[in-house]
Amino acid sequence: MRATLGELAVRFGLELAGDPGAEVTAVATLSSARPGTLSFLANPRYRRFLAGTQATAVVLDAEAATDCPVASLVAANPYAAFARIAQVLHPAPVHEPGVHASATVHPEADVSADAHVGPQAVIEAGAVVGPRACVGPGSVVMRDAQIGADTRLVANVVLYRGVRLGERCVLHSGVVIGADGFGFAPDRDGFVKVPQVGSVRIGHDVEIGANTTVDRGAIDDTVIEDGVKLDNQVQIGHNVRIGAHSVLAGCVGVSGSSTIGRRCMIGGAVGVVGHLEIGDDVMVTGYSMVSRSLKGPGVYSSGIPAIETAEWRKAVARLRRLEVLERRVATLEGKRGGGKREA
Amino acid sequence: MRATLGELAVRFGLELAGDPGAEVTAVATLSSARPGTLSFLANPRYRRFLAGTQATAVVLDAEAATDCPVASLVAANPYAAFARIAQVLHPAPVHEPGVHASATVHPEADVSADAHVGPQAVIEAGAVVGPRACVGPGSVVMRDAQIGADTRLVANVVLYRGVRLGERCVLHSGVVIGADGFGFAPDRDGFVKVPQVGSVRIGHDVEIGANTTVDRGAIDDTVIEDGVKLDNQVQIGHNVRIGAHSVLAGCVGVSGSSTIGRRCMIGGAVGVVGHLEIGDDVMVTGYSMVSRSLKGPGVYSSGIPAIETAEWRKAVARLRRLEVLERRVATLEGKRGGGKREA
Amino acid sequence: MRATLGELAVRFGLELAGDPGAEVTAVATLSSARPGTLSFLANPRYRRFLAGTQATAVVLDAEAATDCPVASLVAANPYAAFARIAQVLHPAPVHEPGVHASATVHPEADVSADAHVGPQAVIEAGAVVGPRACVGPGSVVMRDAQIGADTRLVANVVLYRGVRLGERCVLHSGVVIGADGFGFAPDRDGFVKVPQVGSVRIGHDVEIGANTTVDRGAIDDTVIEDGVKLDNQVQIGHNVRIGAHSVLAGCVGVSGSSTIGRRCMIGGAVGVVGHLEIGDDVMVTGYSMVSRSLKGPGVYSSGIPAIETAEWRKAVARLRRLEVLERRVATLEGKRGGGKREA
Repeated sequence: MRATLGELAVRFGLELAGDPGAEVTAVATLSSARPGTLSFLANPRYRRFLAGTQATAVVLDAEAATDCPVASLVAANPYAAFARIAQVLHPAPVHEPGVHASATVHPEADVSADAHVGPQAVIEAGAVVGPRACVGPGSVVMRDAQIGADTRLVANVVLYRGVRLGERCVLHSGVVIGADGFGFAPDRDGFVKVPQVGSVRIGHDVEIGANTTVDRGAIDDTVIEDGVKLDNQVQIGHNVRIGAHSVLAGCVGVSGSSTIGRRCMIGGAVGVVGHLEIGDDVMVTGYSMVSRSLKGPGVYSSGIPAIETAEWRKAVARLRRLEVLERRVATLEGKRGGGKREA
Repeated sequence: MRATLGELAVRFGLELAGDPGAEVTAVATLSSARPGTLSFLANPRYRRFLAGTQATAVVLDAEAATDCPVASLVAANPYAAFARIAQVLHPAPVHEPGVHASATVHPEADVSADAHVGPQAVIEAGAVVGPRACVGPGSVVMRDAQIGADTRLVANVVLYRGVRLGERCVLHSGVVIGADGFGFAPDRDGFVKVPQVGSVRIGHDVEIGANTTVDRGAIDDTVIEDGVKLDNQVQIGHNVRIGAHSVLAGCVGVSGSSTIGRRCMIGGAVGVVGHLEIGDDVMVTGYSMVSRSLKGPGVYSSGIPAIETAEWRKAVARLRRLEVLERRVATLEGKRGGGKREA
Repeated sequence: MRATLGELAVRFGLELAGDPGAEVTAVATLSSARPGTLSFLANPRYRRFLAGTQATAVVLDAEAATDCPVASLVAANPYAAFARIAQVLHPAPVHEPGVHASATVHPEADVSADAHVGPQAVIEAGAVVGPRACVGPGSVVMRDAQIGADTRLVANVVLYRGVRLGERCVLHSGVVIGADGFGFAPDRDGFVKVPQVGSVRIGHDVEIGANTTVDRGAIDDTVIEDGVKLDNQVQIGHNVRIGAHSVLAGCVGVSGSSTIGRRCMIGGAVGVVGHLEIGDDVMVTGYSMVSRSLKGPGVYSSGIPAIETAEWRKAVARLRRLEVLERRVATLEGKRGGGKREA
């Protein structure tokens, strides 16, 4: 797509310094930009690339704009403004309405006339595919699952029976929604499977990364509220609830029946044990284990930065013998006390 | 499904207090139960919901039954009894025998007449699909793989060449069994691929969660014994052996050639390094790293609970300078000793 | 396949002690070997099995060869030599050229005449499938993606739009290359999606394990250089660059815009936070968190080995109250100082 700087300024309410008729056709980083591209500056660490940029225009804040050598589009939140412009210049692919000849759609499925069902996809009886929704190649939509308007399953996505997705969601390839939660009752000779009879409800504007899994509830539903973003390879256990606009980075695991509040930010590879409550506006830094409920707002951690292995091994050994050190200090305190008595 | 309390009491050997003719049609939690549903009480933390439940009946132990405001089904192990009843009220879906027209089944594959092969599935030459087994949509069963009776691949599951599954297993969507183990011989100019010529053998009554992977053996087989339960996104390396009735929670990784005993419980996101032995009846709590062999029975940990970030950073800094603290204590001890000598 | 010891010695430049006409048809471990198989000894811990082996021949180094009770093939690097011989005895499966009748190949895709496209696969417009490449069953190759010569997608692999793979790569089942990176700009009412307009470039001789995900770049490309090996369930964020011949074990996560050098070895479940640089020849041991740039060469760690839970809990509690211990030591030092003054 192409747009003039003037059009972009008007459409997104930005202050333009430069030629309103200049055209841009793509986005670029400050350092790799060529004429005809639009770049942005949101992170101060990239400010040093501003002076040399060959972009036609840069989206930035008022303070940085004073140093901009090319046209500038000034925004209070340059990254969000850039994101909106990038959506104009690089629109999501459009999928033609209709069901591909190689797809298998059950006659009792309800597929909107303007929805797209890609090659090799499977849609079972009772499933509903909403207006302009897209069921990508190789995806499987089981019995009675519901897909809201404008939602897209990219490829090889699986929705189990009865799962409900809101509108404008994106589920990347390999996502599995609604598999059985991990429920087994220990008994004398092993485990008895506990049927997982709940489902999964996912709100509007949710994006779910590749190969992420969200289990169905044991009895009640697992719930992902509006605007939640899950990165790749995230695992959400049964009966978890994730509040609106929370963001979970890659490889996070949330165990069954835990609740995460609204607007939380959970760093990569964090593990949340089961049956906990994390409040609103909680941030957990990467590689932490959450094993108690956490009040919000707040920032929590337990990850340890890697250091040279030889040094690290000594630190672990010292941690193990802390008890000995504590006893030595107690001895010193006692003897000193004894010394006092001697005095 | 529907059942009377009397039928359930007789079938599962439970003591009924209440109307044997009362019917239930579904399970529910104590707090969300409505008339016509059956609930259970196994975890004392939910006891407070018992008095107000609207369930028609509750499965619980004899002690709790004294407080039950509705019909009770008394069991020594209420959770296992509930699980068995839930299987009656919510039976697993039945798949009609036959091969879907869109599936690709090689003429030299051996598919039982009463097995189900779903849409878009692929079954290669020499593969065996046992009685009443179910190969779900989009699944791929490669050459010479074997699927036991009543085993189900839900959807988009991949079994590599020669993999053997027992009876009554469930493999959730996105599971990959038998991909090459991670075997590369370092050489001057990079790595030489080591062909992975072993296979994978999986016992009876094994359940494997969504997007879990189990690699084939390098030379001998990778083995998962009867009754093992693997949660979602678990990774099992080549030549691992997991003993009967062990349970591995989500996101666990087990590196090559390690052995896990029988009846072990491995918590979420635990990592097991290669070439170790974990004994029978070992529990490892979530987010721990197992880097030495562990004797069973026993409970092992190395996960650290997250705390407020500011406090945590100080704790890590103190751990790093423990050496200094040890030296200060040694100095105190020495000086005191010196003091003694001075005295 | 079968080969004589003489052929193998000549082909791989090995010194043979034994009958050059003796034949081997398969590889085996020292302890499970039977006549007609070839084994190897590379790890000293298996030396004890050498005396009793029934292999027809063993690949080993000159020192160990003195104890070999059967024919020996002496190599400076026995594991690499064994790997090469195993490739001869157990060749990778050959896939017949041609497009399976159930595959969906867009007329504007460019599929080499000698490439293989398996059942239920999907190849979109503009995609290029190189000579002898193999697109396995259920795989999806989106618009304009490119697959180099002799590269194989095993099954249910997804390549997003414009992704480029080099030659002789293997992508195991469930791999997803080129899904959107995790880019969302926070704004007043939630997040604005940042279109991910970069792609993924993967070099030659790269192997990628089952269910691993590599995200497309936000603006520039994500890059995996020649000879890199990624194990199962690895997650690579947008704009990461991984240098040639680096090896990442299972469940590793690398966050966006980080760079890993050449010949690095990253242990299982390691997490690398974003925007870091790891130098060449860096080893990170399993279960570590990399949160600062690491110089190479070097070995780094932060994983803690699991111990008995009761003992571990005390160690964590002591770590938490280290501040108190530090204060007690400071008091001792001060009081002693005071004592001095008293003296």
